[in-house]
Amino acid sequence: MTSDGKVCILSGGVGGAKLVLGMSEILDPKEFIVVANTGDDFVHLGLHISPDIDTLVYTLAGMVDEKRGWGLKDESWNFLGAVRDLGGETWFNLGDKDLAMHVERTKELKAGVSLSQVTKKLSAALGVKIDIVPMADSSVATTILTDDGSLAFQHYFVRDKCNPKVKGFKFEGLDKARPADGVNRFNAEKQRALLIAPSNPFVSIDPILGIPKLRETFIGSCHVKLAVSPIVGGIAIKGPAAKMMSELGIPSTATEVARHYLGLIDGIVIDEVDRDQASQIESLGIKPFVTKTVMSTLDDKIGLATDCIEYIDYLAGK
Amino acid sequence: MTSDGKVCILSGGVGGAKLVLGMSEILDPKEFIVVANTGDDFVHLGLHISPDIDTLVYTLAGMVDEKRGWGLKDESWNFLGAVRDLGGETWFNLGDKDLAMHVERTKELKAGVSLSQVTKKLSAALGVKIDIVPMADSSVATTILTDDGSLAFQHYFVRDKCNPKVKGFKFEGLDKARPADGVNRFNAEKQRALLIAPSNPFVSIDPILGIPKLRETFIGSCHVKLAVSPIVGGIAIKGPAAKMMSELGIPSTATEVARHYLGLIDGIVIDEVDRDQASQIESLGIKPFVTKTVMSTLDDKIGLATDCIEYIDYLAGK
Repeated sequence: MTSDGKVCILSGGVGGAKLVLGMSEILDPKEFIVVANTGDDFVHLGLHISPDIDTLVYTLAGMVDEKRGWGLKDESWNFLGAVRDLGGETWFNLGDKDLAMHVERTKELKAGVSLSQVTKKLSAALGVKIDIVPMADSSVATTILTDDGSLAFQHYFVRDKCNPKVKGFKFEGLDKARPADGVNRFNAEKQRALLIAPSNPFVSIDPILGIPKLRETFIGSCHVKLAVSPIVGGIAIKGPAAKMMSELGIPSTATEVARHYLGLIDGIVIDEVDRDQASQIESLGIKPFVTKTVMSTLDDKIGLATDCIEYIDYLAGK
Repeated sequence: MTSDGKVCILSGGVGGAKLVLGMSEILDPKEFIVVANTGDDFVHLGLHISPDIDTLVYTLAGMVDEKRGWGLKDESWNFLGAVRDLGGETWFNLGDKDLAMHVERTKELKAGVSLSQVTKKLSAALGVKIDIVPMADSSVATTILTDDGSLAFQHYFVRDKCNPKVKGFKFEGLDKARPADGVNRFNAEKQRALLIAPSNPFVSIDPILGIPKLRETFIGSCHVKLAVSPIVGGIAIKGPAAKMMSELGIPSTATEVARHYLGLIDGIVIDEVDRDQASQIESLGIKPFVTKTVMSTLDDKIGLATDCIEYIDYLAGK
């Protein structure tokens, strides 16, 4: 495996974290960075919560509850019960251990430490060696435009269980957001690849790519631009991506994911069940790679990461 | 039992809360208010913690851990373990359930709600009908002057386990503090009594009485001013009061507690074991009442509360 430059993985939560975990088993921490979506971040009970960063950190630290995909294993929920007794908001699940992350983060941010630095410090404390960089240090707030009106992302996603019909998206603060230093450092050199994890294109990846000029910068800095489709056999493995696509009048297919990233990606990794879409995707000018993309076991995650790296090298002409 | 006007109980944490609990069994909630010391309040991990208010609320809600005297029974400590894993500060014990109180309070204060209102709201949510009023809504920070230098109260009390030798006290913000509205409402009418709970005179009661003009206002508004000695047989039932007295060169006796409140109180309730100090106290112009003051059982608490009320009526000439 060659390594001229690094790979930058754009990631949302659960699906992205799985691929990143696989990647951490085959690449050295110096060979890649992870840029995490922060459009899902919100302040809840006065605490700054960064769900995608936390899922990445907990997954890489081996602490994630694998059944749920988010939060900590062996978690307890006594805080939340006490909040209920006090008449507080309990729709967002905050475990007792998980709370330490939010309290420490909030304290540091309030003291003027950047989200990048806080993330570095807290992930290092948990033994995570992978460089997890928030897309921006300033606040970007994803709003879901639905037939129930505009909903803050976590209200749509957690409180309302993705039930409202999606009509569009708004990313408040995105126009003024600047890429975090770690992203800029990555883009300052010619790098091996941009790898878009199998995360939700609309609410996990688009906020990152929507940071002014960032998409163009990635195109310039990365030899290869590759995506992994989060849509497999017409459904999303996790989350509302497929539901959103159909509500937006887009067929929920790997082909449409490829089309979504048209002009950015050179190739896309799709699942074996979507093999018949390969030629369609190819006709868009995007090179498909067909493999097993569903990541149930650690071997699945390593397998997909290996496929991605090999395909990156193939697309680079190596 | 007569009831022209109310009783105002000045209270610190554990000892005061026990007397207040006893009082709640013999008086109607409309017949008394509790003014809680907030000099121990501090911001820890970004959370506003009000230890004395919490001990009062938890005690009155029947939720306190009776063995410890503070915090919640059936508490879990998973948050604190996770904070330790993140490299955070763990010297102050924050239980998982207890945390809900601090998070909700901090959120409300940040939204501009006063400490009085927050206290009212959160104690009501837990079914507490007694009016618990913080001494002031603005911040007062007790500093302990020791041979190890100046220590924030909780650093002295919890982190350093009261080990440093005490030389004096400083109450930052006290000169600018104004009594909370609930205290002013109490003092706007002629009231039955001021009752100083068996709390630490230096760090629990003095901050309250040190609010500009408050001591004089209580003298004017209350028919009777009574204290209960926290010193029994030369020791403090709970906390560093006796240790502080000897370090300050004051004999740790009920007599000296009486002398501490000279000019304010008409009478003092002392324990049977200190019966031989009665005449000494009387010679100060303060009328002693000898009874059992150690509150182990609920009956003890009710007994002491009853003695206080009867002695208040006696001192009022009824």
